[in-house]
Amino acid sequence: MTGLPRYEDVVDAASRIEGVAHRTPVLRSRLIDEQLGLQAVFKCENLQRMGAFKFRGAYNALSRFSPAQRAAGVVAYSSGNHAQAVALSARLLGIPATIVMPHDAPDAKVAATRGYGGRVVTYDRYTEDREEIGRALAEKDGLTLIPPYDHPHVIAGQGTAARELFEDEGPLDALFVPLGGGGLLSGTALSAGALAPGCRLYGVEPEAGDDGRRSLAEGRIVHIDTPQTIADGAQTQHLGDLTFGILQRTAPTVVTASDDELIDAMRTFATYLKLVVEPTGCLGLAALRRHAEELRGRRVGVLVSGGNIDMARYAALLGGG
Amino acid sequence: MTGLPRYEDVVDAASRIEGVAHRTPVLRSRLIDEQLGLQAVFKCENLQRMGAFKFRGAYNALSRFSPAQRAAGVVAYSSGNHAQAVALSARLLGIPATIVMPHDAPDAKVAATRGYGGRVVTYDRYTEDREEIGRALAEKDGLTLIPPYDHPHVIAGQGTAARELFEDEGPLDALFVPLGGGGLLSGTALSAGALAPGCRLYGVEPEAGDDGRRSLAEGRIVHIDTPQTIADGAQTQHLGDLTFGILQRTAPTVVTASDDELIDAMRTFATYLKLVVEPTGCLGLAALRRHAEELRGRRVGVLVSGGNIDMARYAALLGGG
Repeated sequence: MTGLPRYEDVVDAASRIEGVAHRTPVLRSRLIDEQLGLQAVFKCENLQRMGAFKFRGAYNALSRFSPAQRAAGVVAYSSGNHAQAVALSARLLGIPATIVMPHDAPDAKVAATRGYGGRVVTYDRYTEDREEIGRALAEKDGLTLIPPYDHPHVIAGQGTAARELFEDEGPLDALFVPLGGGGLLSGTALSAGALAPGCRLYGVEPEAGDDGRRSLAEGRIVHIDTPQTIADGAQTQHLGDLTFGILQRTAPTVVTASDDELIDAMRTFATYLKLVVEPTGCLGLAALRRHAEELRGRRVGVLVSGGNIDMARYAALLGGG
Repeated sequence: MTGLPRYEDVVDAASRIEGVAHRTPVLRSRLIDEQLGLQAVFKCENLQRMGAFKFRGAYNALSRFSPAQRAAGVVAYSSGNHAQAVALSARLLGIPATIVMPHDAPDAKVAATRGYGGRVVTYDRYTEDREEIGRALAEKDGLTLIPPYDHPHVIAGQGTAARELFEDEGPLDALFVPLGGGGLLSGTALSAGALAPGCRLYGVEPEAGDDGRRSLAEGRIVHIDTPQTIADGAQTQHLGDLTFGILQRTAPTVVTASDDELIDAMRTFATYLKLVVEPTGCLGLAALRRHAEELRGRRVGVLVSGGNIDMARYAALLGGG
């Protein structure tokens, strides 16, 4: 386990992203507090550059490239926020970026990635494997592959969000964090261990796919089929080796939220906090609602991971359509 | 004109609301900047307590009550953000609040006002006059009436938002501000005069009711019928004596935005800034779009006044329904 990132790596990442990533605001709502019977603070990574915390990890990773790596370029496979995070980071650092996306990815996402200056390579999601394509491109052109979560610099970068939260709010009693591949949660665990050792950490998975909970219970990385959930950022099939290693050691409580609870939380964010939050970003608040009773009177953080969602879809979910 | 508030009153208001009102964040979007060809910064008063800048002025005014005024209570007439601002401020200061609202006001608004601890008195908007009812209640019970905009402490309080923006961002080249009764714009003009004398100030009215522009052009307060617009916070029929006095002296440029432009801006806020903004709060960005050419390359502020909107209506506007 010597290869696992540590809190010192989060501190280093924080200095690398300073002045480039936003130090996102922490918001609160008296009405939410009254409803839940506790004091909640929301770390708003939906207000991060490109709309999600993923920018932190991607920028940290790319900022460490050697001159030769920078010249050759970066490759990433993702249909979501990681793609845009890598494309934007590469643009800011002057690194050529190649993003492998499914041929039927939404036009808006392809356009956004191209808008950040990324070259988009498409693949057929039914007949081709994106990891293979990514690796083949990396080998052929000497590109550096940056995976979406299982990478020490990505994990360390994601940990900077919770670090800022603890710096601003002190050691909270509990913190709710979305859980997909585990990059955000394991980075958060590093910061919590150093800055708020008494803070109870909750990782929140979609109810449709609780591989994280099962992995920690069984002591091995459990693989599942792609879970059917509106939380597209948490539709991962398994934890990574590094993220699992950190989570085994730090032992967060893993809980779940249903799609209906996510939609409820999405409406609460819009109504009381005036925030557009994507379904995955609603995992924390949705789970906090379920667990409010056991946290009565406590100071509780919620990591709001992102706000990228197609507007027609968002309007339909908000409006109940 | 000796009764007009001055910048010193804004400074005093800032010290009174400090630690009670939020110092709201200033957000920006690279994609909006690229589309407009300038650098825009958004002062997010939709993230203010109770969801709008109105809290600043109401709290400032109520915090200056004498012991006798506090004991007797406050009365306000409003179906919108001013009602909630007075109700919340009164609750925080331990002052009994009476809010005069139309009998057919939306349940959500009545509930929100009661939720903040306000007593709601309803009137028939077709047969009764709310100002008369407010005045009658004030006389009968010795209540202090706080009008929504034409009051020196209200104006001074509203000016604190722009003061914070100039403190955070320096003297901008231009600043766009929603214009209804003129409380926010005149308070902003006081702060701009002191902190950013070279900043060009734009007041933005709904296209359906440009009484502000006409008033400044004609040198007298022009009265109009209630304008038909989705910008319900700017459905005022005339400027106030104090707000007109300040605006005559400070001479902002008054421009307009159509409802379609407001809806476009609302979608832009949700898509690029992840913010829920009510139609009135969209006036600034909508007008900036029209005037982007003349501000090419400049640093431009946009005052986002509030985010209170019924979710079903918001979803319908976002979704194009």
